[in-house]
Parts: sequence; structure tokens; C-alpha cells
Amino acid sequence: MARRTKIYEGNAKILYEGPEPGTIVQYFKDDTASIGSGKQAVIEGKGVLNNRLSEFFMTGLNSIGVPTHFIKRLNMREQLIRQAEIVPLEIVVRNYAAGSFSKRLGIEESMQLPRPIVEYHYKNNELGNPLVTEEHIAAFGWAGQQDMEDILSLSLRVNDFMSGVMMAVGIRLLDFKIEVGRVYDGDFQRLIIADEISPDSCRLWDMETGQKLDKDVFRRDPGALADAYTEVARRLGVMPKTSTPMMKPTLIN
Amino acid sequence: MARRTKIYEGNAKILYEGPEPGTIVQYFKDDTASIGSGKQAVIEGKGVLNNRLSEFFMTGLNSIGVPTHFIKRLNMREQLIRQAEIVPLEIVVRNYAAGSFSKRLGIEESMQLPRPIVEYHYKNNELGNPLVTEEHIAAFGWAGQQDMEDILSLSLRVNDFMSGVMMAVGIRLLDFKIEVGRVYDGDFQRLIIADEISPDSCRLWDMETGQKLDKDVFRRDPGALADAYTEVARRLGVMPKTSTPMMKPTLIN
Ligand SMILES: Nc1ncnc2c1ncn2[C@@H]1O[C@H](COP(=O)(O)OP(=O)(O)O)[C@@H](O)[C@H]1O
Ligand SMILES: Nc1ncnc2c1ncn2[C@@H]1O[C@H](COP(=O)(O)OP(=O)(O)O)[C@@H](O)[C@H]1O
Ligand SMILES: [Mg+2]
Ligand SMILES: [Mg+2]
Repeated sequence: MARRTKIYEGNAKILYEGPEPGTIVQYFKDDTASIGSGKQAVIEGKGVLNNRLSEFFMTGLNSIGVPTHFIKRLNMREQLIRQAEIVPLEIVVRNYAAGSFSKRLGIEESMQLPRPIVEYHYKNNELGNPLVTEEHIAAFGWAGQQDMEDILSLSLRVNDFMSGVMMAVGIRLLDFKIEVGRVYDGDFQRLIIADEISPDSCRLWDMETGQKLDKDVFRRDPGALADAYTEVARRLGVMPKTSTPMMKPTLIN
Repeated sequence: MARRTKIYEGNAKILYEGPEPGTIVQYFKDDTASIGSGKQAVIEGKGVLNNRLSEFFMTGLNSIGVPTHFIKRLNMREQLIRQAEIVPLEIVVRNYAAGSFSKRLGIEESMQLPRPIVEYHYKNNELGNPLVTEEHIAAFGWAGQQDMEDILSLSLRVNDFMSGVMMAVGIRLLDFKIEVGRVYDGDFQRLIIADEISPDSCRLWDMETGQKLDKDVFRRDPGALADAYTEVARRLGVMPKTSTPMMKPTLIN
């Protein structure tokens, strides 16, 4: 692989300059971190699975007219994406109460919500990605009024699509998180889905058994994470052919 | 005083059935509690001051056409109010960063906000009155779309009025909290400002010295609270004539 300029390294991914202006190579690492517990580990093969799964979901979204940053998969761990100006929000769509939502509002985990709820969290790890309201977003100029309308309708479309995908393979989509970014086509600006969609960013329970098939598994049993993600990939028929066999994770701290 | 039916006793006030249907007598206690620290105390005379101050602000609001629950003051500690169906939200309007807002968003205390920010907190002491968004409010039916529009415009009008009142006496209004309730005039339903407006529910700093003149004083120095509230009442010309002289607070825990 030729030497490349690294743009950014986060928890789960590395961004490199892409082959053409306006493109980025997104490399999926095996690192997993649980913000709450401070646990960190390397889960062999996780990056390979997420690269495939994100490709699968983003391609599907593109095909129904929900624009995403995804251009094409380059290899087992890398995909070519369109560079975007990321809106500093983690957009969370919830269908069932779980996690921080249950705790904050005193609503029993797994309770179906009266309707999908779209939440915005300010993307700032040091502050713990705090929940923010449209008033905060407008006051600090993180996104304009038109952006917010587009973000809401994009998010609900992603929710419809992802709920359908998961339902088809016996999985309940409790909630998920997306990021969006701005791209420019000449003078025309629009928003696209960016970052990744994977079991790292979705809360997924088996419909029959209630078994968790997402990153929450890691908080209890790091060793079972790769199995859970593999199960999601298997059900969706997205098993990488040449992936390393799954091994026990190496705990870092 | 005749025997009366108690409807509710909260931290700061007791509600009794009023003389006519649809009315309530609101009794202002001397109790003060700081939710964060768990400190509680009785501040002699605080209830008397807040009864007067809330009367002053609510009367002013009524006079500019912002409807409130206030009917008339009955005596030193009591006022007659119109019974309302309280919307279970604490509506917070912020002009400057402070308190939980500063902490959550990493914005320096006392920084002026680019514009006033209206926040909604779910009124539930056990959950610590968590911040909620319009999506939460709509999903759980705490208030409808029309209510939310009315709440926003009422809140901003209260902010304009209260900012003016405070500015006139050299006090900066950093933020405040209100509650609103629904009343019915025949078939016609509308929202009015309820509960209280007082130094218990506003964050007030002297413009020159930065001295705190609100409930925050209590967290550091319970003994100074009555002095601070008295100072606000004094500047506004709202000194109760026959109030008990201020004494040191009795700490409960
Ligand atoms: N299309 C894109 N253009 C520019 N940046 C992107 C794009 N998609 C994702 N990103 C950013 O790349 C980073 C992905 O790395 P990640 O390990 O998830 O980092 P983080 O810990 O910041 O979430 C994120 O900061 C995300 O906002
Ligand atoms: N006009 C009104 N009609 C009915 N209830 C009211 C009205 N104004 C205030 N209240 C309610 O009365 C209570 C006031 O008591 P308080 O000591 O502040 O209680 P709390 O600890 O619940 O805030 C609050 O619960 C408030 O919602
Ligand atoms: Mg990320
Ligand atoms: Mg109260």
C-alpha cells in the first residue's frame, strides 16, 4: 500500500487523503471502546465486519435515494468515501427505550416508544456527547433551520430503511446513531449520511431471544462481541469471504 | 385562619383549596433546598419575600398582556391564584451561560449567549429534572405542537420583561425558570404562567460587582440568602412592611 497522508485518527476509524480531491479513504480499525466504563479492547476482525456492514447499509440507502458518502469498498478494511463537512452532532433515532434514554427519563428498557424519537447530541467526547436541543443548535450555529429540517427527514428515512432491513432478519432495531455532512455540487449544498452504520452505532436485539447483537455486548462480555457482529453479518448475507477467523480480544485496559 | 384542604406540599410552597372553584391559595414556605448538594434549610422570611416578589413580577406580566395565574395577594405568605393544569416541564430561558448549561456544553460561566436559549426540562425531581427536547415532549404527549409554540413565545416575552425589570435596577438576568399551565374559559383553552417568579427561580447577578443575588448564594453561604433576596426586593421597592426581621437560617441537614 502506498504511503498516504493521514487526516484523522478516531476511536474506530482512520481517515486518509483519498486518490482524488474531495475523497477520503476510511480505514476500519479493530479498536472498541466503551465510553461509560472506560474499557478498551482490540476485537480481531471487527473492522472488517463493520467495513462490510457499513457498505451494505450505505449502498442500500443510496439505492433508495438517501444520499450517503459511500463511493466504493477498496479492500477488507477500507472504503472510499466522499469528503463532507461533518455537522458536529450525533443524531440518534430511537424506536424503543434503552441506555441513557431509559435512565434519563425513567422509562423501562425495551419499552416501545409512542413514535420514533430523533435526538441530537453535541459531538464532543470530552463532554460525553451531551444531549442538545434545536435551540442550542441554532444559537451556536451548528446547523441552520433548513439543515435541521433535512436532518430530521433524512434520519426518519434511514430509520424506516434500517428497521426494514433488520426486521427482515429477525432483529429489532432499538436505536441507532448517524452523522451527516455537507457537500457542495457547484453552488448547491446538500446533506449526506456520513461516518458509518454498523453494529457499533446501532442497538440490535434478536427478536425471539432478546439477545444483544451490538456494541452493548462488549460492556458485559468483550469476548462475545465479534460473534455478535458476525451473526448480524451472517443473517444479512454479508460475510467477508477472506476474513481472519475471529479470535479472543486483546484487552488494552 | 380557617381550616383548609391541603392539595399539595412541595419544597417551597403549599397549595390549599381556594375560596372558589378553580382557585388555589399558594402559601410560600421558608424552606430552601439545593438539589445538587442535598442541603436543606429554613431561611426566615424567604417565603414572605418570594410571595411579594412573585406578586410584583406576575402583576407586571398581566399588565403587559402576558397571562399569569396570579389573582391577588392575601397576606404576607399567601396569594390567591387561578388553578391550572400544569404542563410537566420546567421551562428555562438562558441569556448567559451558567450552572448545568456551562458544565454540559463546556461554555464558560457568565458568557453571553448568541441569543436567548429556551430549554425544556421534564419536571420530575427523582430524575433530576432532565433536559428534554421537543421530540420527547411530542412523543410522550406532555404538550402539543400549538402549546409548544405558545410556550416559546410566552417564555420569550417573560424574558424581555424580566430582563428589563432587572436591568433597571442594576441586575443581570442570567437565566430563569417558569412553569405554565392550561386554563379553560368555556371551550377555549389557553396557557398561563403559573408557579412563581422569584430569586428562587432566577439567576441574578449584580451588574457592577457580579455579586450573586439568587438561590445560588445558598449553595455557598446559606446565611447570606435572605440578605440577597432582601436586596433584590429593596431595589425593586418591594420591601414587605411588616416582615419578620431576617435571622440566621436553621440548618435541617
Ligand atoms: N464523509 C466524511 N467526511 C469527513 N469526515 C468524516 C466523514 N465520515 C466520517 N467522518 C469523520 O471521521 C471520523 C471517523 O472516525 P471515528 O473513529 O468514528 O472518530 P470519532 O472518535 O471522532 O467518532 C469521525 O470524526 C467522523 O465525524
Ligand atoms: N396555578 C397553578 N395551578 C396548579 N398547580 C400549580 C399552579 N402553580 C404552581 N403549581 C404547582 O404547585 C407546586 C408548587 O409547589 P413547589 O413547592 O414549587 O413544588 P415542587 O417541589 O413540586 O416544585 C408545583 O408542583 C407547581 O407545579
Ligand atoms: Mg465515531
Ligand atoms: Mg417548584
